[in-house]
Amino acid sequence: MSRGALTLDDVREAAARIAPHICRTPLMTSGSLDALAGGKLHFKCENFQHAGAFKARGAANAVFALDGESAARGVATHSSGNHGAALARAAALRGIPCEVVVPEGANPVKRAAIARYGAKIVDCPPTMQGRENALANAVAKSGARVVHPYADFAVMAGQGTVALEVFEAIAPDVLIVPLGGGGLLSGCATVARALSPKTKVIGVEPAGAADAQASFRSGEVRPVSEPRTIADGLRATIGRPNLDIIRERVDDIVTVTDDETVAAMRLAFERLKIVIEPSAAVGLAAVMNDAIVLDGRSAAIILTGGNADLDRLPWSINKEAV
Amino acid sequence: MSRGALTLDDVREAAARIAPHICRTPLMTSGSLDALAGGKLHFKCENFQHAGAFKARGAANAVFALDGESAARGVATHSSGNHGAALARAAALRGIPCEVVVPEGANPVKRAAIARYGAKIVDCPPTMQGRENALANAVAKSGARVVHPYADFAVMAGQGTVALEVFEAIAPDVLIVPLGGGGLLSGCATVARALSPKTKVIGVEPAGAADAQASFRSGEVRPVSEPRTIADGLRATIGRPNLDIIRERVDDIVTVTDDETVAAMRLAFERLKIVIEPSAAVGLAAVMNDAIVLDGRSAAIILTGGNADLDRLPWSINKEAV
Repeated sequence: MSRGALTLDDVREAAARIAPHICRTPLMTSGSLDALAGGKLHFKCENFQHAGAFKARGAANAVFALDGESAARGVATHSSGNHGAALARAAALRGIPCEVVVPEGANPVKRAAIARYGAKIVDCPPTMQGRENALANAVAKSGARVVHPYADFAVMAGQGTVALEVFEAIAPDVLIVPLGGGGLLSGCATVARALSPKTKVIGVEPAGAADAQASFRSGEVRPVSEPRTIADGLRATIGRPNLDIIRERVDDIVTVTDDETVAAMRLAFERLKIVIEPSAAVGLAAVMNDAIVLDGRSAAIILTGGNADLDRLPWSINKEAV
Repeated sequence: MSRGALTLDDVREAAARIAPHICRTPLMTSGSLDALAGGKLHFKCENFQHAGAFKARGAANAVFALDGESAARGVATHSSGNHGAALARAAALRGIPCEVVVPEGANPVKRAAIARYGAKIVDCPPTMQGRENALANAVAKSGARVVHPYADFAVMAGQGTVALEVFEAIAPDVLIVPLGGGGLLSGCATVARALSPKTKVIGVEPAGAADAQASFRSGEVRPVSEPRTIADGLRATIGRPNLDIIRERVDDIVTVTDDETVAAMRLAFERLKIVIEPSAAVGLAAVMNDAIVLDGRSAAIILTGGNADLDRLPWSINKEAV
């Protein structure tokens, strides 16, 4: 597809296609967090999504958009996390094979989820080269369709359905979206631009993996050689098609530190009484630390997932280290 | 009021009275938990209630039912937990004074919540005698109305609104209610008997504080001299008026061990992606360990509160102790 080709209609088609396979997640509010943030916050709870993350949407759209012949050969991807589980789930729902290349050292909670949905797990070394070689080998044998976690228009369109649900309920002054490879932000910004031009769209990424901010400013993909962040879902390098859409449709990209992210994650547990993973907390971290100043405005913050490692919650780990 | 005098109309009046001050909490479901439990589960999420627990309902009903003259003298209670915070909140909403007697050693999270709502905290020794003396002294000075955490008909009527919301949405085969002093169970059983006679109503209490089961069987209040359980909200001895209602309207009382409770609490975090406190987990613990066998039936399980100590989640503590 050409640059910027993702449209609101693509997202609407995705919404119709995946409706039977995903759940419409709630928007939560909290008076005490509003007071702390200085604005009215609406949290889009994708931690309650099937397989515990918004990734169920893009994966379902990619899998159910395949024609019968392609589908029969199955799907494959490399993923250390939620996309792998989401693709495994979508493939199981359609009854087609799925292979997921998983790097050694991946989050064990997320690895277990991939296995639970019945995908074939292929181990690989924890490098980008290792992942790509393993995926190429797998696909060479099976002829499976590779579903990239974010640099894929069907995936972006599926992720955009998150914003579609937000704007069906409210028209926030600011839409705040965690940013790793940029699949969610691409889809959501496309929806926001079309449905609510006054809404500012802001991506948030970890300071230790701020490739997207650098890429956004320069116009070139600028990978970070060794991303360092607790937000394991946000370590990926922004995709080229994602960057093009984001430069056109997003107002700004801001960063937060891991300490800010961990504090925000804990705050969500404490005040919203919900479980979110570190990657999901960066939006709240941004408003709590004035990376985004609301000044009385309303915001929708996408809480992307809830697959936290409950045996190693980061504020406990930090405390032990002190 | 006379024995068994609590009626559905009392609960309906409470619902109308407290509607502006409480939130209507959602019912959550989980396909994976249904598969584990062997029945269809509906979780009533009072962890999302204001002040983090169903106690907001009974306290609001008691405070807003007072006439102007009584209200002006304020309210008081003794509480180591959620009732104290809920009463403090209700008093703040009505703009009247509130004193809460808090025993030394109480859960610091819950103590902080009481203070946050602006109540005057009165410390006392951690014995029933110490609590009662401190409360009597406080009330002698202020003339405040004592709002007992459960042996109070206005409180019971308020707690019963939880079940009113459940039965407005579904008519489960089984209604499962955590049981400490019996305020919630009294109110909910009254609603269930009136609206859905086929529904079995079952109270669940910790094996280490099983005064209610012994009292239910004997008809006499049978305190446990030293209740030992992690479920700090369920250590209280069942109230006399509560026991009368419960013997008339409840089908059975079952118990769960603390290990079962901790495992169920973790399961709620993991699968429902929500934060609940140990006391809230006993209902899920009962169905996961066959204290209640569903055998394909549907159940509504009341998750009573979410004020967990996030720095000392019990599965982490257990692991450290090994």
